[in-house]
Amino acid sequence: MSRNKFNDLNCSLSDSLNLIGEWWTILILRESFFGTRRFEDFQQQLGIARNILTARLSTLCESGILERVPVKQGAKRHEYQLTTMGRDLLTIVIALTQWGDRWLRKDQGVPVTFIERNNGEEIPKVCVRAKDGRELKTRDIAMLPGSGASEDTRNRLKQIAEKWEKRMQQESNS
Amino acid sequence: MSRNKFNDLNCSLSDSLNLIGEWWTILILRESFFGTRRFEDFQQQLGIARNILTARLSTLCESGILERVPVKQGAKRHEYQLTTMGRDLLTIVIALTQWGDRWLRKDQGVPVTFIERNNGEEIPKVCVRAKDGRELKTRDIAMLPGSGASEDTRNRLKQIAEKWEKRMQQESNS
Repeated sequence: MSRNKFNDLNCSLSDSLNLIGEWWTILILRESFFGTRRFEDFQQQLGIARNILTARLSTLCESGILERVPVKQGAKRHEYQLTTMGRDLLTIVIALTQWGDRWLRKDQGVPVTFIERNNGEEIPKVCVRAKDGRELKTRDIAMLPGSGASEDTRNRLKQIAEKWEKRMQQESNS
Repeated sequence: MSRNKFNDLNCSLSDSLNLIGEWWTILILRESFFGTRRFEDFQQQLGIARNILTARLSTLCESGILERVPVKQGAKRHEYQLTTMGRDLLTIVIALTQWGDRWLRKDQGVPVTFIERNNGEEIPKVCVRAKDGRELKTRDIAMLPGSGASEDTRNRLKQIAEKWEKRMQQESNS
């Protein structure tokens, strides 16, 4: 798997996968959201090899998702805490879990239910919403080149838009 | 990377990663959301080796995320379309892209902007929301064992809750 390939794609999805698109990484993040902070606890909870855990934690710190913080002021031992950038991955961890609950756990039941701490209400399905809160589906969403779009991306988006028009015409004719 | 390890975790996040936690897989899904359906088009757009593409498409069909559909009625050639289960991954594709836009593209600008097709309004940040639409953060969310929780999961959730209580007490004391 060549990482350079992905860096060429001018795509924030590939960039994100470059950082967190690895199984252990996202399960380490899950542990962080569970409140795990110490190396030994990550190791015990995940049953991950120490050298792999060390490497993944380093990468997560270098990329700014986790930070190493002394256990107490002036202490030599440290622990790993989510940064703002890391906490912002909550959406993805919850959305992936909910998707698994819906599609892969139909028969066995859901292992974990997410509730709002204050009132005990179940957390609704995370989904793409319009400003007014309507749930949006694939067909409701279009794409425009952003300020960082490369020439290739612009051409690609044009192609996608033309293909869409064509498909809509075919559908309305049939 | 042992898949069996993950199957033991009684966790829908690991189950989801088992299926889509692989770079090419999620980029194939991105292409599907872009409207790509034919093998040759996936191949050309992603520059992926044909044998890898064949394997990934097979897995995606077997797991029910894509389906093979004849190009026309009775045709021998077929194409790959997202199922309902597959389209339900839109949230994750958009949320991962937006996260990359926010945290990895600060200087270069965003390659692609998602807008609502009907009115051109930018799609808001996908996030975890309460029923009334409030954005929820990590601290607002608690976990309960669901109907499919194993004994291990129940014990773990109890530990997490106790750790949380302890941390809150420490914070209120300091």
